[in-house]
Amino acid sequence: MNQSKTKIEIVISEIEQQIKNRSLMPGARLPSVRKLANDLGFSVSTVVEAYERLIALGKIESRTGSGFYIVGPLAPLALSELGPKLDRSVDPLWISRQSLEAKADVFKPGCGWLPDDWMPLDSIRKALRSAARSPDDCLMSYSTPLGLPALRDLLARRAQAKGINANLNQVLLTDSGTQAIDLVCRFLLRPDDVVLIDDPCYFNFHALLKVHQVKVLGIPYTPTGPDLEAFKEAIETYNPRLYITNSGIHNPTGAILSLSTAHQLLKLIEQSNLIVVEDDIFSDFEYSPAPRLAALDNLSRVIFIGSFSKTLSASIRCGYIIAKPEWIDQLTDLKIATSFSHNGVSAQVLLSALTDGSYRKHIELLKVRLTKAMHDTITKLEPLGIKPWIKPQAGIFVWCHLPEGVEASKIAKYCINHQVILAPGNAFSQAPNAGQFIRFNVTQSNHDHIYKTLADAIQQESS
Amino acid sequence: MNQSKTKIEIVISEIEQQIKNRSLMPGARLPSVRKLANDLGFSVSTVVEAYERLIALGKIESRTGSGFYIVGPLAPLALSELGPKLDRSVDPLWISRQSLEAKADVFKPGCGWLPDDWMPLDSIRKALRSAARSPDDCLMSYSTPLGLPALRDLLARRAQAKGINANLNQVLLTDSGTQAIDLVCRFLLRPDDVVLIDDPCYFNFHALLKVHQVKVLGIPYTPTGPDLEAFKEAIETYNPRLYITNSGIHNPTGAILSLSTAHQLLKLIEQSNLIVVEDDIFSDFEYSPAPRLAALDNLSRVIFIGSFSKTLSASIRCGYIIAKPEWIDQLTDLKIATSFSHNGVSAQVLLSALTDGSYRKHIELLKVRLTKAMHDTITKLEPLGIKPWIKPQAGIFVWCHLPEGVEASKIAKYCINHQVILAPGNAFSQAPNAGQFIRFNVTQSNHDHIYKTLADAIQQESS
Repeated sequence: MNQSKTKIEIVISEIEQQIKNRSLMPGARLPSVRKLANDLGFSVSTVVEAYERLIALGKIESRTGSGFYIVGPLAPLALSELGPKLDRSVDPLWISRQSLEAKADVFKPGCGWLPDDWMPLDSIRKALRSAARSPDDCLMSYSTPLGLPALRDLLARRAQAKGINANLNQVLLTDSGTQAIDLVCRFLLRPDDVVLIDDPCYFNFHALLKVHQVKVLGIPYTPTGPDLEAFKEAIETYNPRLYITNSGIHNPTGAILSLSTAHQLLKLIEQSNLIVVEDDIFSDFEYSPAPRLAALDNLSRVIFIGSFSKTLSASIRCGYIIAKPEWIDQLTDLKIATSFSHNGVSAQVLLSALTDGSYRKHIELLKVRLTKAMHDTITKLEPLGIKPWIKPQAGIFVWCHLPEGVEASKIAKYCINHQVILAPGNAFSQAPNAGQFIRFNVTQSNHDHIYKTLADAIQQESS
Repeated sequence: MNQSKTKIEIVISEIEQQIKNRSLMPGARLPSVRKLANDLGFSVSTVVEAYERLIALGKIESRTGSGFYIVGPLAPLALSELGPKLDRSVDPLWISRQSLEAKADVFKPGCGWLPDDWMPLDSIRKALRSAARSPDDCLMSYSTPLGLPALRDLLARRAQAKGINANLNQVLLTDSGTQAIDLVCRFLLRPDDVVLIDDPCYFNFHALLKVHQVKVLGIPYTPTGPDLEAFKEAIETYNPRLYITNSGIHNPTGAILSLSTAHQLLKLIEQSNLIVVEDDIFSDFEYSPAPRLAALDNLSRVIFIGSFSKTLSASIRCGYIIAKPEWIDQLTDLKIATSFSHNGVSAQVLLSALTDGSYRKHIELLKVRLTKAMHDTITKLEPLGIKPWIKPQAGIFVWCHLPEGVEASKIAKYCINHQVILAPGNAFSQAPNAGQFIRFNVTQSNHDHIYKTLADAIQQESS
């Protein structure tokens, strides 16, 4: 026994020595147990035990069916390398970065936000001046864990108006809508969990879920909500943990969830482990309010998310989560651990802008402009053979089918070289036909150069 | 073969049926393979195969040595349940939440920030008024992915002044220093990686690392930096991935890294897979600049983090990461995926406040006040038998030893009931003697009620 122990130690220290002097580099394969035992004249069990201890020490690893390898430094998490490598022009992050980096003279029908002059500039300037006169502690101290009570109260009341029964203690402020969803994902998801998303859906959901290393399953989105048959099958087959969707107006399709689909969806979910994140980001653009899953379900399995990046400012960031109290409590712990606090001054500025009396007028004006822009965009796309999947009743997006045989990714590449950033369908969906779609932001599509460039791109592509 | 396949399907559908009608609830143990085979009159291999497929479907799981169980919904991530359950009065998150939630009439020598009237209120008010006059796009549009170039340039130049060779393209703005560290952790860490921290260290590092589900190892911190022997042993034994530390002034001890320790530390790291995060949060309070690991190592394995929550405002949040260009690029992708953008208006406000000419004067004044407050606090603690571990040369913290036999957590509990929030040593360290220490924030310790309450608490505790 003692003798055998010494032999095990000999094997361990020999291998450690070779790692140290770099004759065994990270990733190198160790000799097989049998071979090493033979070479050293030791028993197989001695070498097995030595390898086991080296595994426990984290120095080597066993790969099933393949042998033992020196553990190297883990590669840093490169999002570009997670999941299938997409063509860079349709990579979700590429679109985001191009849009965010684009200079002022570039046209951005592919981006997800409104032009500056559609935004309530005077109201925000006034709110900043008002913030400059805030009490000392509002300007200097960390906010309370949940965030500015007056803003949370307002958000709870706005939710009530949508039928969502919540008070201010069920509202948690975050630094953005994206951060809110990320926090919920950190709370609920583990690697390899299955997450349902709409197909197509907002492209950053793909990027965000890659970070969480979950399995993502797209459920076809119909003009009245997710395809219920596909949803049912997904629940039964994959036991998914989360479903992320938009409420109000769907991105990118502009479709609106019907009450009947919402009801049936929640009935399906009732029997499962599924939790729903309802991202209410575009809801202020609605003409007639769509049903909220959070309202029907009374915040039992639904978590409600929102922000003001589309209607007040994308630069003064503030998002929020509305959920049941016990989840808010745990999400608050997570928020403190990962970002300590949020931007209290931004919360004040947005509260001022929301309550200075001009917000509703601003939104009403926006809706009128949106209706016109939607009509104009569709009208100008028509002669190019670019047809809307549906004519959206509201919102900033129209999801369009390209002429037969024309590929969105190729059109997008041509256009980027001509100062036009598009959002090709592949970024929103991995469905085979997604490459025939493009999402247009109607608020960013009011310029002849865009249509001229599209026409050239299509002609070049067809010829 | 066909026959056997049908039998497998019978087993699967029988179990699925029982899950559906809830006769098998999540967490329930399935009959053993042998028993079920016996009951059904099928072969063992049929049942084994059926169970295998149910595992692949995610419906059941195998627990080694214990059998097969129905998979339930995963419990949401409750930070309070990860890791050893600490007494709630010394739980890092509890201290954070108590401090953040505390009303104005509560004394907070345990918190980590400065009183409002120590902060540059006029400068921030002026900066907000100036932001109100910004160009439209600065107020309304998403910031560029890395963030406001002028602020990044200033941060690069400030880093240069500390010997860190970086340009503005190596600076990434985030929404806070904590978020910056969290982003680096997401980039580099995988569950069960080993992370080294200082013992004691800033308590939120513990909370943050719990979220990342890594193994945390504390390295004793000496008056000149981490204990090098312990560091060496940790590297050799555990192959750690990350070391998180403060540069400039150490939290909570007020110790300052010596040049010799810094040099030897980096030599140790050279041979390993270790990456260092250097959190520069308190550095503006330094009298004579301590060495920066990022400067010695030329940003090869060191990532430099900072924010302005201690010197400008804790409510207008902005942090930053300085690292080598290829890491900045990948961190930017991660930032977009998880928070899309940061607060561009805050970046502008802080840039204004940093460059209006008053910042250096503000800091000089702060340092004078800090020196006095440090002296006063130590002097007032002395009669209570509370002694500094070292007398810090700079900074806002003093790390103090309680009289023999007095437990910090009990003192903290007494004090919280008397309107005084303390930071007991157990929150900073899991070392056996940590419970005899308390961290005092000298800027929040200038009130007789604090010392009176401490005296009462110690007396009660000793009697």
